[in-house]
Amino acid sequence: MADLEAKPPLSPSSTLEKQFEDFRHHLEESESLRERIRAVAREIESVTRLIYSCLLLVHQSRPIPEVLEKVKAQISKLKELFHRLAGILRECPGQYYRYHGDWRSETQTVVSLLGFMHWLETGNLLMHTQVEERLGLKTSEFGLDIEDYLIGICFMSNELPRYVVNQVTAGDYDCPRKVLKFLTDLHAAFRMLNLRNDLLRKKFDGMKYDLRRVEEVYYDVKIRGLTANGDSTRDLGIQGQS
Amino acid sequence: MADLEAKPPLSPSSTLEKQFEDFRHHLEESESLRERIRAVAREIESVTRLIYSCLLLVHQSRPIPEVLEKVKAQISKLKELFHRLAGILRECPGQYYRYHGDWRSETQTVVSLLGFMHWLETGNLLMHTQVEERLGLKTSEFGLDIEDYLIGICFMSNELPRYVVNQVTAGDYDCPRKVLKFLTDLHAAFRMLNLRNDLLRKKFDGMKYDLRRVEEVYYDVKIRGLTANGDSTRDLGIQGQS
Amino acid sequence: MADLEAKPPLSPSSTLEKQFEDFRHHLEESESLRERIRAVAREIESVTRLIYSCLLLVHQSRPIPEVLEKVKAQISKLKELFHRLAGILRECPGQYYRYHGDWRSETQTVVSLLGFMHWLETGNLLMHTQVEERLGLKTSEFGLDIEDYLIGICFMSNELPRYVVNQVTAGDYDCPRKVLKFLTDLHAAFRMLNLRNDLLRKKFDGMKYDLRRVEEVYYDVKIRGLTANGDSTRDLGIQGQS
Amino acid sequence: MADLEAKPPLSPSSTLEKQFEDFRHHLEESESLRERIRAVAREIESVTRLIYSCLLLVHQSRPIPEVLEKVKAQISKLKELFHRLAGILRECPGQYYRYHGDWRSETQTVVSLLGFMHWLETGNLLMHTQVEERLGLKTSEFGLDIEDYLIGICFMSNELPRYVVNQVTAGDYDCPRKVLKFLTDLHAAFRMLNLRNDLLRKKFDGMKYDLRRVEEVYYDVKIRGLTANGDSTRDLGIQGQS
Repeated sequence: MADLEAKPPLSPSSTLEKQFEDFRHHLEESESLRERIRAVAREIESVTRLIYSCLLLVHQSRPIPEVLEKVKAQISKLKELFHRLAGILRECPGQYYRYHGDWRSETQTVVSLLGFMHWLETGNLLMHTQVEERLGLKTSEFGLDIEDYLIGICFMSNELPRYVVNQVTAGDYDCPRKVLKFLTDLHAAFRMLNLRNDLLRKKFDGMKYDLRRVEEVYYDVKIRGLTANGDSTRDLGIQGQS
Repeated sequence: MADLEAKPPLSPSSTLEKQFEDFRHHLEESESLRERIRAVAREIESVTRLIYSCLLLVHQSRPIPEVLEKVKAQISKLKELFHRLAGILRECPGQYYRYHGDWRSETQTVVSLLGFMHWLETGNLLMHTQVEERLGLKTSEFGLDIEDYLIGICFMSNELPRYVVNQVTAGDYDCPRKVLKFLTDLHAAFRMLNLRNDLLRKKFDGMKYDLRRVEEVYYDVKIRGLTANGDSTRDLGIQGQS
Repeated sequence: MADLEAKPPLSPSSTLEKQFEDFRHHLEESESLRERIRAVAREIESVTRLIYSCLLLVHQSRPIPEVLEKVKAQISKLKELFHRLAGILRECPGQYYRYHGDWRSETQTVVSLLGFMHWLETGNLLMHTQVEERLGLKTSEFGLDIEDYLIGICFMSNELPRYVVNQVTAGDYDCPRKVLKFLTDLHAAFRMLNLRNDLLRKKFDGMKYDLRRVEEVYYDVKIRGLTANGDSTRDLGIQGQS
Repeated sequence: MADLEAKPPLSPSSTLEKQFEDFRHHLEESESLRERIRAVAREIESVTRLIYSCLLLVHQSRPIPEVLEKVKAQISKLKELFHRLAGILRECPGQYYRYHGDWRSETQTVVSLLGFMHWLETGNLLMHTQVEERLGLKTSEFGLDIEDYLIGICFMSNELPRYVVNQVTAGDYDCPRKVLKFLTDLHAAFRMLNLRNDLLRKKFDGMKYDLRRVEEVYYDVKIRGLTANGDSTRDLGIQGQS
């Protein structure tokens, strides 16, 4: 290492400073971007909290159309917030997944709520493309990550057993059958996926408990003969519940 | 439940199946991409293990040029592997950070080894752009993440106290002074950065222990007068400190 | 430290190298064997996932013969995979239990599925020798470990409460009685075993919850007089359920 | 439930009982075998505790030949115990690895102690075949598992830093150099192995701390010039220590 002395480390030292000065800017920009993303994510979270509060009223058997009416005003707020998010991400092309962790959990909640609303309204699963539509997202520039969609749907599933219990309590004895059919199909569809041992897999594994709980409620209703009359006539989609 | 069969929610049901069929393809493609990335990462890991084995010989006072000569043959292998990695990532534009976790720890090790080699050879810090050059990376398409570079440099710093101890043991009493100067500058440069509470911050916090250990060795050497002669002539850089 | 080079502990040093060179080969062979075992185990896992998806249809009251027909095509695949596994293990005689951990959990799942199918078909427990037969195993060379068989049977038991609930829901009020008889006998048989405090013991402890749940369903059915008429005539094996 | 008695699924039921009766015998035999293995393992453990107590005296600078003399009487006990172990395992051919967990940790300790003794006596590494020789094992029937040997050697390495410190305290300033040479070679040999992420890998990772600690002690001795005189004359192997 004797030759170390001979070399004039003057220039290396200033190169070093220059490099770290660049890094400082880079990290600060990145941090400020993250801050802006987090700020929007917090606003999204705040809107989803509001939506969830409203939606909870369905457990108290409030008429679904009334509940959904209230909630729908919030959807445009969500749309606007995702528009802002997409705008921020447009500033750093190719870095969607770099900051993904900063908004994904909020997005999953959004999916679960939109999915639950859609199911209440139609009895069907809200599709991935439909979520993007509602949030004004374009896959090509700022899309909805598929795993986020799937995790959101699992969260939605977690809400269903409670809904079924409360509907039966309120006298809607046909609800368990319909939810069971929906959850069974959804569960079967998920089973087609070859999931890694990650969060999504864990959330999906939880779905089977929702399924079983709904089966148990359906069992309770059936064994008491509560669904005996009218099974054939009531069968007109889930709107009949409210 | 016989009526379940009779009910024709056929169109939603088949849309559902279609969607999950698409997801299955998507997840499988993503998984296979990840597998290919992991395979290359494992090869990188295997080359770095080889390089590290060679580099360890400097702790036994083997001549640096001899050690580096052996190692350099491996660098072209690394270059080729990163070329393959870049090729795989090119297939999925904008998803660098989606799979980043699958190669980043191996890349940090590569940085630490290249950095150590460069320091052994020149006494200077290997710059970010120099690492990219050596690995044949282009920032525009598949660059070296700055945090990976910085963490790799922290790992390199961890190697220095041991090197200093072994050099002094072998009679090189001037080594601590040089390493101390290098580490002090590096530590000061890092301090300019405003680090978040993450892995990089933790690794950087560890650097101060390297610095202290080298200071202690320098102290041991100085207090025993082992650097006494020649100090005045050799002192062309670090003078301010001692 | 220059004298280290000069010293000639050549012979011990080269013996050392030779030994570790042998170890390297040994560990690499062992690792490659393990890789091959894991690859087959993953294929087994993939087939069991398919089988399980099919079997789940019995919870929706699909006719048992139809469900089993679909599944049986997969059994020959399993047989072929276990044949491959046995072939790999034949390469390293006496090391069945060395690699046992690499396929045992998949094998337990296979036992649980075969057991469930057999029970659906006959109402009886699938014996250890019958599992070996179906999988083409020979105890003398690559047999089914008894604890794996027993744990698999415990997993099968976990499926029964759900089955009973869904059968009752579908109007098969005689199912609980039959399942209860089966589970009671099975539980009593397990109780004869002196189990250590290990996984098998834990899984067996869980079986009592299955038993209790089935007892409760049987109670629900009895207390409502749902099994009152025709008990004597319906008693023709489990096929009569659907 | 009276009709349960009337039902005659007698033949399946008695087959069931027969099978579980067989299992009971099987599990009891296996348990009793395990008990006998554990009993021998406990005796081995007790002898190793005795040996270790004796060996600890080398940290107090007792003459090595005296210490080893005391210990050697115990080796024949170990040999006898391993003979008994081999005898028990001979009763159940092909099940070495089934019960391996019941004696492996004790065996690793035996390796570490024999290895330490051998190193104290000769300065060299005790080979795998030498351990088998000393314990009267034959690879063909009841050999020493290679990973157990390697883990035992790692444990031995953990003892060396303490030994070096105490030897230097007692005035043997040449000890660090010899131990460092030994550990460096051993560490390099281990690095040739491609270790999985398991216990052995973890133990090996610990060896580098032993190496560094010995380097530090060597550094302390060198920097004080304590090894200055006589380096050339003392260099006659490790026997010169005592």
